[in-house]
Amino acid sequence: MAVERKKWSENFSEWYNELIETAGIQDKRYPVKGMNVWLPYGLKIMRNIERFIHAEMERTGHDEVLFPALIPETEFQKEAEHIKGFEGEVYWVTHAGLEPLDVRLILRPTSETAMYSMFSLWIRSHADLPFKIYQIVNVYRYETKHTRPLIRVREISRFFEAHTAHDSYEDAERQIKEDLEIFDNLARFLALPYIISKRPEWDKFPGAYYSLGAEVMMPDGRTLQIGTMHNYRQNFAKAYNIQYETETGDHEYVHQTTFGMSERLLAAVIAIHGDDRGMVLPPTIAPIQVVIVPIPKKDSEADVFAYAREIAEELRTAGIRVHVDERDIRPGRKYYDWELKGVPLRIEVGPRDVEGKKAVLARRDTLEKITVERDNIVEEVRKTLDAIHENLYQRAKEFLESHIKRVDTIEEAKAVFEDRRGIVEIPWCGEEECGLRMEEELDAKMLGIPYPEEKAKAPEGKKCPVCGREAKFIARFARTY
Amino acid sequence: MAVERKKWSENFSEWYNELIETAGIQDKRYPVKGMNVWLPYGLKIMRNIERFIHAEMERTGHDEVLFPALIPETEFQKEAEHIKGFEGEVYWVTHAGLEPLDVRLILRPTSETAMYSMFSLWIRSHADLPFKIYQIVNVYRYETKHTRPLIRVREISRFFEAHTAHDSYEDAERQIKEDLEIFDNLARFLALPYIISKRPEWDKFPGAYYSLGAEVMMPDGRTLQIGTMHNYRQNFAKAYNIQYETETGDHEYVHQTTFGMSERLLAAVIAIHGDDRGMVLPPTIAPIQVVIVPIPKKDSEADVFAYAREIAEELRTAGIRVHVDERDIRPGRKYYDWELKGVPLRIEVGPRDVEGKKAVLARRDTLEKITVERDNIVEEVRKTLDAIHENLYQRAKEFLESHIKRVDTIEEAKAVFEDRRGIVEIPWCGEEECGLRMEEELDAKMLGIPYPEEKAKAPEGKKCPVCGREAKFIARFARTY
Ligand SMILES: [Zn+2]
Ligand SMILES: [Zn+2]
Repeated sequence: MAVERKKWSENFSEWYNELIETAGIQDKRYPVKGMNVWLPYGLKIMRNIERFIHAEMERTGHDEVLFPALIPETEFQKEAEHIKGFEGEVYWVTHAGLEPLDVRLILRPTSETAMYSMFSLWIRSHADLPFKIYQIVNVYRYETKHTRPLIRVREISRFFEAHTAHDSYEDAERQIKEDLEIFDNLARFLALPYIISKRPEWDKFPGAYYSLGAEVMMPDGRTLQIGTMHNYRQNFAKAYNIQYETETGDHEYVHQTTFGMSERLLAAVIAIHGDDRGMVLPPTIAPIQVVIVPIPKKDSEADVFAYAREIAEELRTAGIRVHVDERDIRPGRKYYDWELKGVPLRIEVGPRDVEGKKAVLARRDTLEKITVERDNIVEEVRKTLDAIHENLYQRAKEFLESHIKRVDTIEEAKAVFEDRRGIVEIPWCGEEECGLRMEEELDAKMLGIPYPEEKAKAPEGKKCPVCGREAKFIARFARTY
Repeated sequence: MAVERKKWSENFSEWYNELIETAGIQDKRYPVKGMNVWLPYGLKIMRNIERFIHAEMERTGHDEVLFPALIPETEFQKEAEHIKGFEGEVYWVTHAGLEPLDVRLILRPTSETAMYSMFSLWIRSHADLPFKIYQIVNVYRYETKHTRPLIRVREISRFFEAHTAHDSYEDAERQIKEDLEIFDNLARFLALPYIISKRPEWDKFPGAYYSLGAEVMMPDGRTLQIGTMHNYRQNFAKAYNIQYETETGDHEYVHQTTFGMSERLLAAVIAIHGDDRGMVLPPTIAPIQVVIVPIPKKDSEADVFAYAREIAEELRTAGIRVHVDERDIRPGRKYYDWELKGVPLRIEVGPRDVEGKKAVLARRDTLEKITVERDNIVEEVRKTLDAIHENLYQRAKEFLESHIKRVDTIEEAKAVFEDRRGIVEIPWCGEEECGLRMEEELDAKMLGIPYPEEKAKAPEGKKCPVCGREAKFIARFARTY
């Protein structure tokens, strides 16, 4: 059997929207547009992702906090760029009970303006630095564009944000490096290859000195941003008066960074690893890693079920998340269900397997089946799960790489987008005017220049296709989610 | 050393408010009244409580979901009693970006009205029943009374709510019993003795057929409600059209229940187990169960620290949450800090302990110290932690029991409240008029009648002190939080 990815690639949007509901991720019928209900199966996968994030945060010395979701208008307005960036998309709480509020409140779109007045109380001396906290919370953005579950929503219900403060620009830079390392660990855990770009000036996070974005390649050739890191320098520290006493007794503003992710991580996993049968979950986050389907014949029911349960017990003891599907329906129907839900490995056992002390392993990623010895089952399952994870990563990496194209001219770039080939890398002089012009001509967004910046330099002799001047950088363009 | 509980009992309110901040539970300086910031240490304790709740929910077959925090006004208004109960205390979202919303949204004060239109889509047949879900989310209530961290707040950030649907009243009743069993397990886990009362008609949850409440006894003799269970019968099912097809093909409305708890669980733990030195955490939820304080003398530093770390490693391997306090400050200061933070057990090690292969265990609950053999350390620590847990429970149980007083007359009841003696149990005819009259005269709330109802019957011959008629029930009154 071959892995079909026709609908997945040609009608991705439809494929995705259907799958979100049929696979039990979210229900879109909640009566507020852009706000969806997390269903148990989807939430279990998301919790597994979050567990990894919590562990990485603990490993790197970030403390978990929880801030209120409401921010007074007065706090929200302290950093000029920030309010300009968000005021068009915040929800306003104006009344409580039957009375208007004295100070209107916003539902946080992100938590800088909630957190930083507290930072100014908490941070007193150099001994408090670096100061590193994080939270996973619900945030709200009144999106006017087309909404899509997990990707563009009005309630981001699993918003991860780490906020740090430092005694120098260098230490903040060191933090950004740590964020990138954490992100890389997470991406490996999710089998997601990605690229990092430094955003152009006109697309920085509101209030940031610079912004980095992590992108993955979606089945339709558009990119999805699934992580951001911002160095704020002292912009917010000055607006919120976050100062510390140095060792010599002076007072200085802190340097700050943030690191953000969300349920888009799950969107990327679903989209990138899927196929026409449904999801394919990396074993690391699959709520069920192995499903066992007993295929009894007449008179063999008891034996086959006992055999299935015995294998399940052994796998469970070995720490593998396993489920025996004992429903009274045909095996084909069971295959269909678990393939849709992305269970990475299926084990089929029938009377002949019981007799011969064997089992059939069916991989979800390649749809291949192999027969293994019952006695080696734990080892075989472990090996196969690892192979599935590695294969998902490699397949996605090839897909990403084959969708990045280096070109020299606008015409070549246009051809790439006509062919839905993903990301264009093109020489650029570095001037905003030329960058914006290319965005317009290509009907695409500039993701930025490759990061770290050593990778961003244009090869010698390359010219900016807009102004014809010497190119300083390679700039990346893509159609984005 | 004796355990002092003078400030704790005589100035409880001040003691509590101070402790919340000094022990690192929450910061009350967030610029919205009644909304506080969870600090890392407090959140760690709360997460340990939540972990137990998640496990109990899984054990009893409840699926976790997450609903949006915003509810359209139109949905909110479908159940008449419910809206009457909450309309005075909801926050209204009226604008998004710069525009007014077509349909105003409320920030959920609880999730009945968010969930039940989805229930009507999800529940189709008897095979879907019982249907059991839960979530832990932030909810909002515009409290006009005096706010207090974790107890009376405008953002309840850790609100637990289980919602179930059943094919009969009997099955809903069975669910209430399961809720009570879960609650009992949790209360044991937190070493919290409690009472269950069936609320009077005039104090039911808005929309409920009946409501149960679980109360604990606070240091000042007031009670705190920390859990509720409601049987809704078919009230909401009719308002939200939640029907299922029976085995015979008829359509029936489901029966529904809810079970609610919140961060008040932590408030109860802090309040009930504390003393004048600070918190005393049950070992089950203490982020640090054992703190080791090295007490080196000159020239013995390396040995004592090595000894402390070695003990720590052994305890850690045994699954005990342990921390070695290696800060360069005096031991007394360390004792002070960890006593404040409620670490159940402190181990002190000095050069003499190293030499004699001993260690000193200092219990946080009794302040007793005992010297144990180094070789038995894991066993001794385990035994002592168990003893601490049991002692906390027994001490709180005696406190609760000594604060419940049976009386026959209003005068006796008044005397009880003057003496801050907690809960009064008094005969009652069962008429609303007499109940409300007693509430007024006693300046107290009727918690309800003891549950299960077998315990609620008044002994023969007792009279209602208001009307003089035969008493049907024992009614409980208390001053409440
Ligand atoms: Zn140019
Ligand atoms: Zn009466």
